[in-house]
Formats: sequence, structure tokens, C-alpha cells
Amino acid sequence: MLPFEHSTQLRVRYAETDQMGVVWHGHYVQYFEAARTDALRANGGSYRALEASGIMMPVVELGISYHKPARYDDLLTIVTRVAEPPGARLRFDYEILNEAREQLVTGYTTLAFMDAATRRPCRPPHSLRALFT
Amino acid sequence: MLPFEHSTQLRVRYAETDQMGVVWHGHYVQYFEAARTDALRANGGSYRALEASGIMMPVVELGISYHKPARYDDLLTIVTRVAEPPGARLRFDYEILNEAREQLVTGYTTLAFMDAATRRPCRPPHSLRALFT
Amino acid sequence: MLPFEHSTQLRVRYAETDQMGVVWHGHYVQYFEAARTDALRANGGSYRALEASGIMMPVVELGISYHKPARYDDLLTIVTRVAEPPGARLRFDYEILNEAREQLVTGYTTLAFMDAATRRPCRPPHSLRALFT
Amino acid sequence: MLPFEHSTQLRVRYAETDQMGVVWHGHYVQYFEAARTDALRANGGSYRALEASGIMMPVVELGISYHKPARYDDLLTIVTRVAEPPGARLRFDYEILNEAREQLVTGYTTLAFMDAATRRPCRPPHSLRALFT
Repeated sequence: MLPFEHSTQLRVRYAETDQMGVVWHGHYVQYFEAARTDALRANGGSYRALEASGIMMPVVELGISYHKPARYDDLLTIVTRVAEPPGARLRFDYEILNEAREQLVTGYTTLAFMDAATRRPCRPPHSLRALFT
Repeated sequence: MLPFEHSTQLRVRYAETDQMGVVWHGHYVQYFEAARTDALRANGGSYRALEASGIMMPVVELGISYHKPARYDDLLTIVTRVAEPPGARLRFDYEILNEAREQLVTGYTTLAFMDAATRRPCRPPHSLRALFT
Repeated sequence: MLPFEHSTQLRVRYAETDQMGVVWHGHYVQYFEAARTDALRANGGSYRALEASGIMMPVVELGISYHKPARYDDLLTIVTRVAEPPGARLRFDYEILNEAREQLVTGYTTLAFMDAATRRPCRPPHSLRALFT
Repeated sequence: MLPFEHSTQLRVRYAETDQMGVVWHGHYVQYFEAARTDALRANGGSYRALEASGIMMPVVELGISYHKPARYDDLLTIVTRVAEPPGARLRFDYEILNEAREQLVTGYTTLAFMDAATRRPCRPPHSLRALFT
């Protein structure tokens, strides 16, 4: 059902900090990925099953804005939203909050659909379209 | 109380796989770290608080044996054990199991105690010794 | 001197692939970072010295477009460009090419200047402005 | 020719530091991997070609001892050594030095040979045995 929204919680690992004493900026890409996988699973979808069925979803575009740093051991909430049904592409928007509900990071990823065998673009599978309509 | 044992659950992220189609072997080091932090927290300890109090615990030795591969989206159980009270060092042993309870990986890390200001070895803090005796 | 341009070469590590058999999309953030550090060094600047002098440059914005995948063991060329002199912020643009000179990835990062002690925004250091004017 | 020895240079990335201000201990596993790939390449071998020919070399055992920390922007030398010809397994030993020639880290990885199609153990390929005899 659109707009689609799901919240995921995740604790910052020590390995994810850098010498600035905060989460290294590239690691949020992992958090986004974990959050959208979790959002699909919570709604009966499974990216793992999708790949097993021969469809891959490579990321074709990514954007991140950094407002405040996350720190080691912070329990983060990642809100994943989908506003538009999947067409040739599917866009996820993310918002990362800390326990004080401060907005730390916002961003998005746009994914394409690809036939795993041919590595060519393909249409979104019915199962996934069903999640978002 | 010794022997100390704690179980942590953690789901494999896509980013943690490699082109063999399994978890890249170096990522288990992160899983060990997340597991021992969680084990301390569950028992009233906090590595974050420890660092804030001026004590760091660098890893001085690490060993891993790989029995079977973990895969994307697997829900792993990491069992963390401590058999000996902390002296100049503290050793954690780990066992990683999948949902079918197959043993995938075993390993250990030995950590030292270091004064964060001087970067010199120091004695284990009382709070931590209390957890393991 | 503007426009500033520098090329860095870097070989893809096995650890950087994922189960799609290509470089995991988040790792390009590391490549961008390595490339801009290298670009500064080649022009007499040093991010390490900058931090040692009390100035940090957190990333405040990041964007990536993925055109074709990089693969394990590829020798990549990362072209780093700066078009505008540093003001409150400094933007780096990147272009990643493979050995066949195909454009794989384009992106940018915008960095701010921060006083390491106060963690407050500060003006770009003279040494850095000198590199880009 | 045994004993086999090769040196690789590699610069520490910012992303590889942690909030202790040094290289996060798990990242040395990546350095080891990059070093052994480079050692093979320099001697006419190619892990990429090996995988393309249907043989994978999963890591089955890993050990690391940490003597002194590496820091951001350090130019590291990783010495890779092989003392025994490949049998069912192949062991690489590593030594990591900084620019002052201080020994920072020592370690080893033991790799097995696996048929990529069946995922069963297999004999080391002739091309690889030729490198080490």
C-alpha cells in the first residue's frame, strides 16, 4: 500500500566508526540496504527469494545528506519509504534517527530490475508490484 | 559468573557477501565484535562506557576457523563465551550457528586493557572483573 | 589551479565484491575518499596534516550514479575534479573508468570544514585555499 | 620457488580507521587478501583467472597477532610468504611493516581448493603448483 513506510532498528558497530569518532559516512549505505531488505521482509517480500527466482536489483542511483553524526553503540531507527509503485525503477527514501529522535541522515536509493541470467533490464516481478499497490 | 555465555542474533547483510556467493571471510571479525559488545551489555557492562571512562580494549590476537559458509539473509546466532577472568588480557571465544543449528565458524579474540590517555597497558577495571567472577 | 583534476589508480579487492559478482555499490564511497586524499597529496596538500592541525572535513552530501559495474581485480582510474574554490564547503566530482576507458560510475561529495576541538564549522584553511586558486 | 616471498605496498584509507584513531583490527584481513593476490600476479599467477577456470580458494583458517597499530595514511608494506608447496591446502604468512620498518602485524591464512561448480574440495591446479616448486 502506498505510501509505504517501515521502521528498522540497528545498533552501530565499533567497526563502523572512524577516527573522527563517529560513523564513517559510507557505512550509511549498508544501513539503507539492511533497512530496505527488512522493510520488504516485514511486508511478505524477500529480496533473497527474488534473487533466487532470477531477478536482481542493482542500485543505479544513490544520494545522502548528512545532518548530524551517529556514534558507536547508538541504537538507530531507519525509516524506509516508497512513494511510487515500481516501474522500470524503484526508489526508496530513508531517514535515520537516533534514540533522541534527532534526524541524523536522509537519503535515497534508486534500484533497477535486471534478469540475473542475461544481465539485461527486465520488468518488476508481480510479487513486488503487489507489495506497493 | 564463569563460565560466561551469551547468545546474539544477527542477520547477514548483502554488503557482507562476496562473489563466491557467501559471507566474505573477514566480516566474521565484525560479527565477533558485535557479539561481545552485546554480551557485555546484556550483563550490565558497556564497552562504550568503558571507553568513556578512559579505558580502551584493543584486540591483540585473533583466530578464526571456517567450517561452512554463511549466506545472505541468514539469521546467525553467535555464542560468546569467557572461560577465564580478565588478567592482563581477556579472551572471548565465539561459535557461529545458522538457523539449522549448523556450526559455521569458530574463533576467538584476545583483548588487552589500555589507558586511553597514555596508550599504555593498564589493569582491567573493577566493573569488568566483577562481570566475570 | 582551477579547474583542478587528478587521476588515481586503484585495484578492486575481492572483499569489495558482492554476490552479484560485481563491486558492492557502497564501496565506491571508499574509492572516492581514497581518490580525493591522493589528489590533495599529489598537489602538496595532506588531509592527515590538516586533521593534525585541528581541522576536520566531514562529508555533508554525497551522490552516486552507477552506469556499469566494476569487477574483482579491475584496475580502476578515478578522476577527481574540483571546479569551485573552497568556501564554507568544498565539492569534489569523481569519474571512475575501467581499463577499457568505459565510464562506470560518476559522483560527488561535498565536504564542510569543522574545528576538531569545538566540532563547529570553521573557515577553510589558507593552505587548502591556496591549492585551488 | 620456495621459500616464496613478495612485498606489496598499500596506503591506509580513512574509512579503515576506527574511533581508537588506528586501523580497525578486522581490516588487516583485507590487506592480507590484497597482498596474496598481488603476490600471485607478480609471479605470473592470477586468482581471477583461477576462479574463471572453475576453481575457488576459500579461506579455512586465519590468525592475526597485533603488535603496533597502523594509522590513517600510513604507507604499509605487506610481506607475503609461502613456505610449503600447495597440497590439499595452501598457507600464506604475512608481515605488515610501516615506513619506519616497524613490525605492526603478523598473521596467516590457510586456503583450500574448491571446485566452483560442485563446491567440493579439489586438487590444486597445476599452474598454481608450478608457482611454488
